Amino acid sequence: MKPAPGLSRHFLQIKDLRAEEFSYLFERTRIIKSRFKNYERYQPLVDRTLAMIFEKASTRTRVSFEAGMYQMGGSVVHLTTGDTHLGRAEPVEDTARVISRMCDLVMIRTYEQAKIERFAAHSRVPVINGLTNEYHPCQILADIFTFIEHRGSIQGKTVAWVGDGNNMANTWLQAAEVLGFTVHISTPGGYEVDPAVAGIADRSCYRVFDHPMQACEGAHLVTTDVWTSMGYEAQNEERRKAFVDWCVDDEMMAVAQGDALFMHCLPAHRGEEVTAEVLDGPQSVVWDEAENRMHVQKALMEYLLLGRIG
Amino acid sequence: MKPAPGLSRHFLQIKDLRAEEFSYLFERTRIIKSRFKNYERYQPLVDRTLAMIFEKASTRTRVSFEAGMYQMGGSVVHLTTGDTHLGRAEPVEDTARVISRMCDLVMIRTYEQAKIERFAAHSRVPVINGLTNEYHPCQILADIFTFIEHRGSIQGKTVAWVGDGNNMANTWLQAAEVLGFTVHISTPGGYEVDPAVAGIADRSCYRVFDHPMQACEGAHLVTTDVWTSMGYEAQNEERRKAFVDWCVDDEMMAVAQGDALFMHCLPAHRGEEVTAEVLDGPQSVVWDEAENRMHVQKALMEYLLLGRIG
Amino acid sequence: MKPAPGLSRHFLQIKDLRAEEFSYLFERTRIIKSRFKNYERYQPLVDRTLAMIFEKASTRTRVSFEAGMYQMGGSVVHLTTGDTHLGRAEPVEDTARVISRMCDLVMIRTYEQAKIERFAAHSRVPVINGLTNEYHPCQILADIFTFIEHRGSIQGKTVAWVGDGNNMANTWLQAAEVLGFTVHISTPGGYEVDPAVAGIADRSCYRVFDHPMQACEGAHLVTTDVWTSMGYEAQNEERRKAFVDWCVDDEMMAVAQGDALFMHCLPAHRGEEVTAEVLDGPQSVVWDEAENRMHVQKALMEYLLLGRIG
Repeated sequence: MKPAPGLSRHFLQIKDLRAEEFSYLFERTRIIKSRFKNYERYQPLVDRTLAMIFEKASTRTRVSFEAGMYQMGGSVVHLTTGDTHLGRAEPVEDTARVISRMCDLVMIRTYEQAKIERFAAHSRVPVINGLTNEYHPCQILADIFTFIEHRGSIQGKTVAWVGDGNNMANTWLQAAEVLGFTVHISTPGGYEVDPAVAGIADRSCYRVFDHPMQACEGAHLVTTDVWTSMGYEAQNEERRKAFVDWCVDDEMMAVAQGDALFMHCLPAHRGEEVTAEVLDGPQSVVWDEAENRMHVQKALMEYLLLGRIG
Repeated sequence: MKPAPGLSRHFLQIKDLRAEEFSYLFERTRIIKSRFKNYERYQPLVDRTLAMIFEKASTRTRVSFEAGMYQMGGSVVHLTTGDTHLGRAEPVEDTARVISRMCDLVMIRTYEQAKIERFAAHSRVPVINGLTNEYHPCQILADIFTFIEHRGSIQGKTVAWVGDGNNMANTWLQAAEVLGFTVHISTPGGYEVDPAVAGIADRSCYRVFDHPMQACEGAHLVTTDVWTSMGYEAQNEERRKAFVDWCVDDEMMAVAQGDALFMHCLPAHRGEEVTAEVLDGPQSVVWDEAENRMHVQKALMEYLLLGRIG
Repeated sequence: MKPAPGLSRHFLQIKDLRAEEFSYLFERTRIIKSRFKNYERYQPLVDRTLAMIFEKASTRTRVSFEAGMYQMGGSVVHLTTGDTHLGRAEPVEDTARVISRMCDLVMIRTYEQAKIERFAAHSRVPVINGLTNEYHPCQILADIFTFIEHRGSIQGKTVAWVGDGNNMANTWLQAAEVLGFTVHISTPGGYEVDPAVAGIADRSCYRVFDHPMQACEGAHLVTTDVWTSMGYEAQNEERRKAFVDWCVDDEMMAVAQGDALFMHCLPAHRGEEVTAEVLDGPQSVVWDEAENRMHVQKALMEYLLLGRIG
């Protein structure tokens, strides 16, 4: 029977899953990706419909969830703010009640984390965070899977975060706590991460550095994001000045581990947060990382809807 | 072979179907809903594509038709006014000719009923009214099915309509005539239903009351709608004044039958057309009603495309 | 295994395919259309996802590709400029890399041909031109198939193009060169085709006439397009004056072959580029032509994704 409200598992932030559940998800991702690459049909989600609600524009999140759901045999209803009344003409709770009666799974890209939590609390079906001001857990899932694919376990490793103390940074910190690695973080003054927002109890999982070169030292993975995320365009000019030294370049990569990887959640602005040399260079795995969004999300949707397979 | 124009059955208003066809549809809805609830796959519309044309924004109509079509195995092309030329760059008739060559079924949400009728006249495939200024037949289908689900046959029963004499009110009147029940209607002065627009021949199927309390007396179902429907936003201020006594509250529910149901096609504005106590109270079946949109529409699409099953 | 970049076949202009490949495509179209008309299920593209990127609005291209893909068993992700960053927030090349990792096929409607070529050069999967300023090859594919369906081979025949020397005219010229027919073209002064843009080496495939009546003389097919294509709205007034004598009417049809066909890629403006008598008359095959967009595109997608069948 269709579930009642309150019984669904959601994925609103990294902490919603345990370490061993991540291990399971990464193993499923590997299998599901391999089937895709070899054109082996695998459609466990036939009959299931994903509702995607976008309050911010998106290419990668849109295509990765939608194409991913199709590859799993399911269907997608794509709603943008123009179509919906998410918290405008009716309370978020009412929208959650209605949509979760008709669809089997909901992905939301919105502004406040609080809104997606209110939605989830009144949904009969699982809700996935497709980006909020606070977190971007699906992206970090993809990034860690990409790391594992290229280098093996991330446990005990060091990830250097260079740039804005934004939702990506918050999510890296939370993942470090759950999965047992360390984040070296360097942001311009005024753009620090707030551990309360990041939602971590144990601050030993990260270290803060004034200079990005220090953060990169010995790192197994160097990663960054655009200087101005969506929703902060008004601060564009002041951010361009503040972030000028937070451009990942060959020099930073040189102080990291010899086989360090470079990641970026894209779109990238060559010459701003990263040089073309690094983004398009041999240590960059950004295209694998983008593709892996789709595969980790397929594993996630399978898990939230069907539980453990086999 | 694909049909020629003029041979398709449409559902543009309640009168397009006979009473015994409604009985059939409600019975099919019951079966189709039960399959959905039990995850029993039923995909008779594989190979069929529904074109949805929206000239007004929508959440419920959009999701219920789209998810419903997917559950039946079919596909959906979702067109908004921005995408299409419905009566702008080309005559409605030409759009009908082209789209009905490529898709198997068309759902239209538009303004004038006349436009959807012109479309249907030139379409090779069935056309469904997803809301016009005059009628909202799919919603009433859902409402009556929800009544039957909770209370059995609606024949001989009394439905109290409290509020705007709008497309919903018109459609209730037409349904009363076809299905043999009575509507007690109370609207503010200046917002009365026009029986000519409602399209009913026999005025014995409804009674008009000055006060909403009178309309609710002895009713088996009390129902209302927002004070200001889409397209009438300019009248918002004057409507707020005119409708102030047309708020369904506990007092109105108290004079109805003891087991009277409350319905609302949503989105609802608590404290305007209905109190939170009634909307969220034990007599309210608004969430079932919303879900049932999807199931009655699945039965309707099945019937228009495949005829009677079994 | 999924292909590497550079190995995919694209359809960016008519010249991308050879004459014998067109013969194959037209034969496949005939078979695929017949299956559709007889409700014979044929779903070779299950598991495949088409990404459609629209930088210009569209009804016909949208519905024909989307419904066509569904009929073949596949899925569609529909992206508009609002959703994507095609050349804005990130270089076209990056978008191509990301989308072609997730989807199996890409259709693009954009402005400059150069942009679609840059996209294709960095795509791992086939790219189809759904309209550029320079070419509209899918429409011409449909037109020629429609001609063959009604009259047999187009080889050696004469096509009269009356009106704007636009992307449709360019594509007719290119098709004439590849498939061995002749285009008689008459445009107002200042709106001539440019053989360099048309991309033809051999000018013997077309003849230019000052007066549209001359172009129509003896033609087996008379065809035209709106006076003002999308993107040229600012020139609307001057174009209305310049094109006033380039309205296809009964007189022009009378000097063509007795069984000449009339085509128009739609939407049509009766009384401007064509009279109602011609558009709605017995020689007009515009509705077949519109439907055939879908069928030729299904054959094209099948060919680009699966190669020759049988």
